[in-house]
Amino acid sequence: MTKRSLISITDLTKSEILRITELAADFEAATAAANLATQNESDGSMATRGLLQGKVIATLFFEPSTRTRLSFESAINRLGARVIGFSDASNTSVAKGETLHDTISVISNYCDMIVMRHSLEGAARYASEVASVPVVNAGDGANQHPSQTLLDLYSIQKTQGRLDGLKVMMVGDLKYGRTVHSLLEALSHFDTEFVFVSPPELRMPAEYRNLLDRKGLRYTESSELADNIADIDILYMTRIQKERFNDPMEYERVKNTYVLRASMLAGARGSMKILHPLPRVGEIATDVDDSPHAYYFKQVENGVYARMAIICYLLNVKK
Amino acid sequence: MTKRSLISITDLTKSEILRITELAADFEAATAAANLATQNESDGSMATRGLLQGKVIATLFFEPSTRTRLSFESAINRLGARVIGFSDASNTSVAKGETLHDTISVISNYCDMIVMRHSLEGAARYASEVASVPVVNAGDGANQHPSQTLLDLYSIQKTQGRLDGLKVMMVGDLKYGRTVHSLLEALSHFDTEFVFVSPPELRMPAEYRNLLDRKGLRYTESSELADNIADIDILYMTRIQKERFNDPMEYERVKNTYVLRASMLAGARGSMKILHPLPRVGEIATDVDDSPHAYYFKQVENGVYARMAIICYLLNVKK
Amino acid sequence: MTKRSLISITDLTKSEILRITELAADFEAATAAANLATQNESDGSMATRGLLQGKVIATLFFEPSTRTRLSFESAINRLGARVIGFSDASNTSVAKGETLHDTISVISNYCDMIVMRHSLEGAARYASEVASVPVVNAGDGANQHPSQTLLDLYSIQKTQGRLDGLKVMMVGDLKYGRTVHSLLEALSHFDTEFVFVSPPELRMPAEYRNLLDRKGLRYTESSELADNIADIDILYMTRIQKERFNDPMEYERVKNTYVLRASMLAGARGSMKILHPLPRVGEIATDVDDSPHAYYFKQVENGVYARMAIICYLLNVKK
Repeated sequence: MTKRSLISITDLTKSEILRITELAADFEAATAAANLATQNESDGSMATRGLLQGKVIATLFFEPSTRTRLSFESAINRLGARVIGFSDASNTSVAKGETLHDTISVISNYCDMIVMRHSLEGAARYASEVASVPVVNAGDGANQHPSQTLLDLYSIQKTQGRLDGLKVMMVGDLKYGRTVHSLLEALSHFDTEFVFVSPPELRMPAEYRNLLDRKGLRYTESSELADNIADIDILYMTRIQKERFNDPMEYERVKNTYVLRASMLAGARGSMKILHPLPRVGEIATDVDDSPHAYYFKQVENGVYARMAIICYLLNVKK
Repeated sequence: MTKRSLISITDLTKSEILRITELAADFEAATAAANLATQNESDGSMATRGLLQGKVIATLFFEPSTRTRLSFESAINRLGARVIGFSDASNTSVAKGETLHDTISVISNYCDMIVMRHSLEGAARYASEVASVPVVNAGDGANQHPSQTLLDLYSIQKTQGRLDGLKVMMVGDLKYGRTVHSLLEALSHFDTEFVFVSPPELRMPAEYRNLLDRKGLRYTESSELADNIADIDILYMTRIQKERFNDPMEYERVKNTYVLRASMLAGARGSMKILHPLPRVGEIATDVDDSPHAYYFKQVENGVYARMAIICYLLNVKK
Repeated sequence: MTKRSLISITDLTKSEILRITELAADFEAATAAANLATQNESDGSMATRGLLQGKVIATLFFEPSTRTRLSFESAINRLGARVIGFSDASNTSVAKGETLHDTISVISNYCDMIVMRHSLEGAARYASEVASVPVVNAGDGANQHPSQTLLDLYSIQKTQGRLDGLKVMMVGDLKYGRTVHSLLEALSHFDTEFVFVSPPELRMPAEYRNLLDRKGLRYTESSELADNIADIDILYMTRIQKERFNDPMEYERVKNTYVLRASMLAGARGSMKILHPLPRVGEIATDVDDSPHAYYFKQVENGVYARMAIICYLLNVKK
């Protein structure tokens, strides 16, 4: 059996991406069926529940990320596997001067899969080369976070009924934003049209624009939010971080410009959905939360199904 | 199915309180039976073990409390559910500026129930309004800690055979003590007589004395411990905290006055039991530990059964 | 049923040690069989999986040790039991001034076994006297760490086919090294010949040399690594810690002297294996990792089986 890791969204072919979103849909349906069974006081048996019984999965968060950790741990537990791990590396052997090579070699012996987050780019790839078990990258610095991309794709597919032929607007920090880069790479497998909205300092980098050019996909760029919302299918919002600006005054100006408010959604398509990798810190006003377009909390639930799908796909476990 | 949370002991009617203590007794009996089965090398099957199989419960300790967290996690695991969560909020998105609204909205998607502790009064109530799953308040600042009250009640009922017609002495910090206020409110459903023993600075507040007056329940107040221990059924000790005093000299005087010693128990009723929410820091001398009146460690065990009962009651799961 | 704890390797008789290594071998075989069953897509049922179902085991790491904690938690989960606990005592009631007596008395009520690590010598023994459940010492200061010794013994037995008649070289800090002292005590039950290699400042203490004398076991001492590697069966490497030296220059000299390199293994027996309690910080060069003699990462895997064996032995649970 070949060991299969997931480090970057570019590790997956288009058909593998579609297979994983399909699996995610299966897990969502199975969960709904099981909840219904519980309410009806039938035996509540759930096809997915014992799928990974007897497996131990390590969640190694060298850099803290409660949200991502809890999402993976929920997925692992819902599959019947057990979790070991740490949420913070400050007390680990790393602090005693151990190399990542040795830490990963050791922990490989305790588990059937490693989910890891690390502040350094490339750490997850290196770990996957050392580990005797599959590694899932749950974020390595500014680099990759493929499970976020897969849950984004699943959310898009579920709400729009397809991945082809959509118009996707990305808003905020498009220069440093890991999630928008990976999502763009994944959507470049499909017939997608992009609208990039960012301050000039935080423009989508040339390498990603070039990728779209090579694939013959259209995009437009703008520095104004709320232009052209009318024909958008997916509005993908991101956080703009203060530390990206040399001039604090410039940050203050930009911060207030890229705030989505309920009043701006008047002309949107009925099916348009707003996504956000969260946490938000003001770029979506709370008056948007009650809008039928708001999808960012439901997107979080999709993350559990997407992660169940990723884990089972890599471990080659079938329902 | 209506979502049901437990934020304050006053959320429960008298009959609900009695239902929960009854469930706690069932869980204690089932646990004893299962342990016996294990010892006899029979199959050790346990009615309660799989009750919540497939469920995931989040323990969110924004403020650390190892004791309460471990008690809930023991109860959750003994019911067959799985735990996700954190024991300390310093590394969570809260630290990145996320609102409690968003944190709870997100985590609701990962689990079937939230058990939370927070340093701010009202945080649990607010969370229960935001969450799509039931919330159990495991302490919100100086405000409420209803599972402590229910385990206290279960301990009283179990040791005295009843909740009506008892004489309960409360000792220590009666002004700020969250546990004594909630216990008083719960016991006010029953025919209870109270004796309050505290330094004058830490007297039981008027609102609680007024509640007893309205209900026609008797109480007396004293500043001397060991007066009138003879006819007491329950002696409820609490910690006096240094930070409550402006004058450190006054604290030193008081601290030594409210220490329960084995020698003071000579005239007590045979059935009298000493309770304490723990941790103690000197207010019960260690020579009391071997007394048949000492019940504070057994009380801890009751906490696991009481929490199993609370969780199943709120999730409407029947044995 | 008598409660049985494991605090020191000297608590076990020779026949008990052999029983535990035999159990470890059973668990390793059962795990391999279960993995094979999973690959063959048969039902994957595993004899060990449900052995401790319904049990809760507390891992109390008053002093952090991620490696040891994860190894125990992997073992506990693979046996079907559940884990509660903490990885760091800074947020526990200990920090609020609670005594170890009370902390252990309380937590005894939450679980069926306690695995604990503490920075103070004697803490685990004291806890085992207070606890109503078995206690496993996962390290108490410089004193004892018996599960490390049992996994070392299991590794030796597995690779050499026996525990009698072996020649064991111990290298590094033999004065303060907890693991070498315990391993020496355990191996003194068998017909072992020792070679001690250390700087003069870090010589094996007289009490351990005297023990070997009393038992009629041979040993030699040397300050040079790589002398006499030819007829060694087990090469047990340990870390030399900077803080043991008054003179930093002396540490720098010694540190570079006790580094094992692949080139030094040319004359070794084919069956010779290199063990290390890990983490290493340079005393085994990475070019040794690919040698057939390198066994320190496989030794880690053995640790999970040894800990499964210890837990089941103490709980008197039979497969």
